[in-house]
Amino acid sequence: MADRPISRRTFVHAGAALPLALGLRRDGPVPRALATGRDDPGTLVKLMGDGPSQTPAEYTQLLSSILSRGEIEPDYYSNGGVVEALEKRMAAILGKERAVFLPTGTLANHLAVRIQARGRARVLVQQESHLYNDSGDCAEVLSNLNLVPLAPSRGTFTLEEVQALVTRSRGGRVPREVGVIVIESPIRRRLGELFDYGDMGRICDFARHEGIATHLDGARLFMASGYTGITPAEYASRFDTVYVSMWKYFNAPSGAVLAGPAALLDDLYHERRMFGGGLPYAWPLAAVALHSLDGFEARFAAGVEAGRTLKPALNALRGLSVEEVPNGSNVFRLRVEGPDAGRLRAGLEAKGILLPAPNASVGGFVLSVNETLARRPVADTVEAFRSAVSA
Amino acid sequence: MADRPISRRTFVHAGAALPLALGLRRDGPVPRALATGRDDPGTLVKLMGDGPSQTPAEYTQLLSSILSRGEIEPDYYSNGGVVEALEKRMAAILGKERAVFLPTGTLANHLAVRIQARGRARVLVQQESHLYNDSGDCAEVLSNLNLVPLAPSRGTFTLEEVQALVTRSRGGRVPREVGVIVIESPIRRRLGELFDYGDMGRICDFARHEGIATHLDGARLFMASGYTGITPAEYASRFDTVYVSMWKYFNAPSGAVLAGPAALLDDLYHERRMFGGGLPYAWPLAAVALHSLDGFEARFAAGVEAGRTLKPALNALRGLSVEEVPNGSNVFRLRVEGPDAGRLRAGLEAKGILLPAPNASVGGFVLSVNETLARRPVADTVEAFRSAVSA
Amino acid sequence: MADRPISRRTFVHAGAALPLALGLRRDGPVPRALATGRDDPGTLVKLMGDGPSQTPAEYTQLLSSILSRGEIEPDYYSNGGVVEALEKRMAAILGKERAVFLPTGTLANHLAVRIQARGRARVLVQQESHLYNDSGDCAEVLSNLNLVPLAPSRGTFTLEEVQALVTRSRGGRVPREVGVIVIESPIRRRLGELFDYGDMGRICDFARHEGIATHLDGARLFMASGYTGITPAEYASRFDTVYVSMWKYFNAPSGAVLAGPAALLDDLYHERRMFGGGLPYAWPLAAVALHSLDGFEARFAAGVEAGRTLKPALNALRGLSVEEVPNGSNVFRLRVEGPDAGRLRAGLEAKGILLPAPNASVGGFVLSVNETLARRPVADTVEAFRSAVSA
Amino acid sequence: MADRPISRRTFVHAGAALPLALGLRRDGPVPRALATGRDDPGTLVKLMGDGPSQTPAEYTQLLSSILSRGEIEPDYYSNGGVVEALEKRMAAILGKERAVFLPTGTLANHLAVRIQARGRARVLVQQESHLYNDSGDCAEVLSNLNLVPLAPSRGTFTLEEVQALVTRSRGGRVPREVGVIVIESPIRRRLGELFDYGDMGRICDFARHEGIATHLDGARLFMASGYTGITPAEYASRFDTVYVSMWKYFNAPSGAVLAGPAALLDDLYHERRMFGGGLPYAWPLAAVALHSLDGFEARFAAGVEAGRTLKPALNALRGLSVEEVPNGSNVFRLRVEGPDAGRLRAGLEAKGILLPAPNASVGGFVLSVNETLARRPVADTVEAFRSAVSA
Repeated sequence: MADRPISRRTFVHAGAALPLALGLRRDGPVPRALATGRDDPGTLVKLMGDGPSQTPAEYTQLLSSILSRGEIEPDYYSNGGVVEALEKRMAAILGKERAVFLPTGTLANHLAVRIQARGRARVLVQQESHLYNDSGDCAEVLSNLNLVPLAPSRGTFTLEEVQALVTRSRGGRVPREVGVIVIESPIRRRLGELFDYGDMGRICDFARHEGIATHLDGARLFMASGYTGITPAEYASRFDTVYVSMWKYFNAPSGAVLAGPAALLDDLYHERRMFGGGLPYAWPLAAVALHSLDGFEARFAAGVEAGRTLKPALNALRGLSVEEVPNGSNVFRLRVEGPDAGRLRAGLEAKGILLPAPNASVGGFVLSVNETLARRPVADTVEAFRSAVSA
Repeated sequence: MADRPISRRTFVHAGAALPLALGLRRDGPVPRALATGRDDPGTLVKLMGDGPSQTPAEYTQLLSSILSRGEIEPDYYSNGGVVEALEKRMAAILGKERAVFLPTGTLANHLAVRIQARGRARVLVQQESHLYNDSGDCAEVLSNLNLVPLAPSRGTFTLEEVQALVTRSRGGRVPREVGVIVIESPIRRRLGELFDYGDMGRICDFARHEGIATHLDGARLFMASGYTGITPAEYASRFDTVYVSMWKYFNAPSGAVLAGPAALLDDLYHERRMFGGGLPYAWPLAAVALHSLDGFEARFAAGVEAGRTLKPALNALRGLSVEEVPNGSNVFRLRVEGPDAGRLRAGLEAKGILLPAPNASVGGFVLSVNETLARRPVADTVEAFRSAVSA
Repeated sequence: MADRPISRRTFVHAGAALPLALGLRRDGPVPRALATGRDDPGTLVKLMGDGPSQTPAEYTQLLSSILSRGEIEPDYYSNGGVVEALEKRMAAILGKERAVFLPTGTLANHLAVRIQARGRARVLVQQESHLYNDSGDCAEVLSNLNLVPLAPSRGTFTLEEVQALVTRSRGGRVPREVGVIVIESPIRRRLGELFDYGDMGRICDFARHEGIATHLDGARLFMASGYTGITPAEYASRFDTVYVSMWKYFNAPSGAVLAGPAALLDDLYHERRMFGGGLPYAWPLAAVALHSLDGFEARFAAGVEAGRTLKPALNALRGLSVEEVPNGSNVFRLRVEGPDAGRLRAGLEAKGILLPAPNASVGGFVLSVNETLARRPVADTVEAFRSAVSA
Repeated sequence: MADRPISRRTFVHAGAALPLALGLRRDGPVPRALATGRDDPGTLVKLMGDGPSQTPAEYTQLLSSILSRGEIEPDYYSNGGVVEALEKRMAAILGKERAVFLPTGTLANHLAVRIQARGRARVLVQQESHLYNDSGDCAEVLSNLNLVPLAPSRGTFTLEEVQALVTRSRGGRVPREVGVIVIESPIRRRLGELFDYGDMGRICDFARHEGIATHLDGARLFMASGYTGITPAEYASRFDTVYVSMWKYFNAPSGAVLAGPAALLDDLYHERRMFGGGLPYAWPLAAVALHSLDGFEARFAAGVEAGRTLKPALNALRGLSVEEVPNGSNVFRLRVEGPDAGRLRAGLEAKGILLPAPNASVGGFVLSVNETLARRPVADTVEAFRSAVSA
């Protein structure tokens, strides 16, 4: 689902439009998965969001399916049970000693900088990052940190920019140390642009040498890996801590994992609770994410492969043109010239292909590749576009 | 479920004991509700916790049952859909203009004092309250408030104590105003003791007159109403804001509602998001709570009535004595002299009556009355105790 | 000067009364010291405040006198020069590695708890302490600390109370550690009452064993030593840090010293500057305090000795009765029955003996012993009282 | 005096060099002012700092001189007396309802943004400003504000940059409002560069329209006025609050004034005290500043005029070249090619003309025009340079 600023008032009054945005018509047919009772996602293709974006019916079906294979061991205040199992699994995948479940990525990023910055309040971030723009200044307002923005209107900052900032900080009338460097990659506000991997390595090496902590906002880290072939563990090895979303593509209704050194994270559940993030039962979130991890890499790889075939095929259709994001990952622009975007969307939905609302500034759509793209042959999807364009 | 301090290490290593604590044996029979496919809670009696404390199987069954009656309209970042429906329902029940869903009660209490205290950092609380003891000093550490404890080792504080504190605050070298008065009732740390209703009224009247905000930590407010006959709305009318738990007895895996004036709460979802409490999908929590509200009052009243019969009957059994909490609500102590507490508990569990772990300081058990007590005739429950005591 | 809450509005409009309160009549004779150009305090006896409470003329005269004996080496942003000399002198007197000059005692106490509490936000204080009552909640509002009050309406708290609090803190749902214990002695709000020395020792031993930092608010520490014979260094040896006022009895217009371990305090000047406490030139404050340290012990001892003679003599006068503070230091109450308190005060001022404004709740005056009491024979002072009483 | 970053360790060990830096040789002759007992500043020319930068002897002499003309009415905890007189005088000069004395400019700027930003945590500042670089992140660390830097490596930012930031802030996932815009002018880190007056007006108009507060860091505001002819009151009328230094050119050992609306500042003394900035006696600071205000405008105008003659004359000397700061005020660079800078400085000091330490990055000196330049005919000063260059 498109990750956009929300106006509550608009939202609240937009009632009727909502189910469509969520990928299921209110009066539509029961998805095949629900009808058959199997853990079968059906053939619905959702060209939006990083994952399947489940409906309540799909989610409940998935939960039943998981339970039918064995008991779900509940947690108690987000400790133990399937929550702990998910934490251990994610720690192993990311090559870190410890991983902690958190209800949202906002809290994961916040706690990562909060616990690593003690006494050194300056935190370097991308000006275009989620933490700097879209987290309500939580780190500044609640944790007394000073987030210093780098790389204005760009995705990647360089070692030289970091060094200049560190030097400047130390040279003030009251010298201040940089406590943490945060890198977001892929970068949501830049349509999935990837932070340059060479710069990333140089910056993390410098930080380690200077005793500056590093955190990777890897909400969509598995998207990056699907495109670069660099494993999540390789990325994570550069950083002290890394956050990965559990809801964007692992189907949890909400949730995030923060991974890093045991010494840093073993007691984090106290901090989580202090922030009101210690859900009494988090198993409904964790169980689904743990289940979805199985086979994710292959499913997403199939989606990526399908995307590689789809994009030139769409570009070849009259009235459509595909525009890739430079140094991008799973997001691309589809410009629509000639056909009416709204009609195109409606035509595709009728064939089980969901697009987000048209984006006027793009002159078409911002589309995402995810695992649903591989639910049916690409040729079928292309054919659906072709007939919708012609209609 | 007993609400107790957690030692993570103990917890993690206590694996085997966990399912029992949660009310279902790992290898036990499938609850009737699941076997029959109906929204039927079975006859399991749980003499612990304020509500049914569902297992994953029970929860999933409940979700399926809700879906079978109609679609669940999802929220988006905890706004809209069934979350909004729950908010409106709770606002109506509590007689407030606006109610906002929050992931935990910790956050609900915290935001209530945070948003009402602006610039007046002193917040009066009970020394024995949850906010003062069990919230990790969130209001102090994250919101720069000064929580001033009243009523040491008591449940209720008086208007005179409040007035003395207000006067003292104004008389310091740097005069400070009291910004908020918080009252928790029933009081968890005092086994459900109720704050004196007369004092509550006098204090709230004084506060209104002085321009001091008031907040009711009514996590278990519906327990109080079940015993006093004073409706939740009557209690809430005394206070500017009130928090009610959605998980303790309304079956949500997690969740809370904060209700109060629209002017105060309309934009609270931004603050919720800043704290990392804006779950992308909260409908799995809200849908269940909204469903459980239907008929709750009657179900709980039946439980209360059953408790009124049960307690003298247990007290009459050899080796058992019931001790009521002065000015209490749904919690009572069961002293066990003679029989072995562990054996007693095991014997009862075999008959579908679940007790919490024995409590050495009580010399028996701390038991709770909730709606499950009415799932079978009290005589059956008494008989189960009698035979377990004799065994 | 009496240390009392200030109402700015009252203050501003109380213009005419001010010079009297400050110990010098607007139209009075030039003090002898100024007339003769010597560093001679004259024979003015001020039965209020802990020290001489200098007028602008007295202060300027003192500064000139200091300069006449040698250059004053200025500081630069409160570092170096005579400020550093004062810091070294105080560190030596207090037996600490390092001492840092701060503009006020409020900041000294605040920084002491701020820098020692990192991550352990609970700070135990006396409910009657200056830090808890009269510092505008600075530690709570600016440093996110939770000040927990002990010993309600008493001066001394006990080891048992400390232990109970530490245990309670660790047992909350989110365990919290006590970071610092602060003891104020003598206690201003209790008229100079001394904290019990035995309890002080037991508490500090316990704290050291538990890794809890300790701070002594010894604003008036030298008063205590003058009465107990326990040296400032002996007191200070119990604690990690200690603050001593530079203005109450060492004649600086403002100023405080915080002493403790070098590792803790070496970089404190950055924190001082961050708070806006890095005065560009602090030498006008430090030079006077450093000068006044010379011979203070003997001058104050003479005052104490004079007080020991004065009090029974006053008590023997008709219409006057002296009431000592239990476990007190240099403050005592003088009840006035019969004579008019205002007339008594005016009569004494005419003879060069200054009293504070009458205190209705005491039924007379709250008087302080300080070094000015030894400026003339006690018999003269008693005689002055006798004739004022009779007038 | 040059306003430079301080390394305490360097500073402490640089003992011998200090008095020279402060403008008086340790073993030098007694300044004429002291010898004659008059309030006569002598003929010492100090081409550094914004004002006379008094020595202890000069300061004490000035205090005596003030006292000789009439009593100084002391303050009590920085309220009343000569402190209040200074506040009223500054309020009148700046055209504001109210002015409050604060011990340092760091605190003045901090409190200005703190009290005006309530609930709107984003504060726009110049990246090159003192508040952003040299105040230890006080606003971020102590007041939970988010300082957003504008105009990287420039002095002036534009209305368009402000508008873009405001729009971006409102468009984040959690919309944030800009609370305050701060403008520093002249800008210390840019050698006295002035913020463009047209941009200043446009920005302040926009802010007023949007309900955003504005603050002028006018530490050196009177320098600006001396060059632009725009009065301090005209500048101040643009802004809600303005801070002016009392020590840089008004001879207080320390001190600042914050001026603005009465409703905002009437109770600021409480906040001042909470920060530890309520000096028990501030009259030694305030009395001197109040005295120095008399005639300042004329004295500084004479200095500016002397500077206008001096600069081309120095530029004409062999081996010297003057470089003006674009859009600057009282600071200029003197490049020295040929003569040895250290020898030049020593030669001038022997003639009563003090220069700061040479600045390698400038290839000479960074000099300041202040009122001392008019203490002797410019021709004499030029002649001193000529002979020092030739030596």
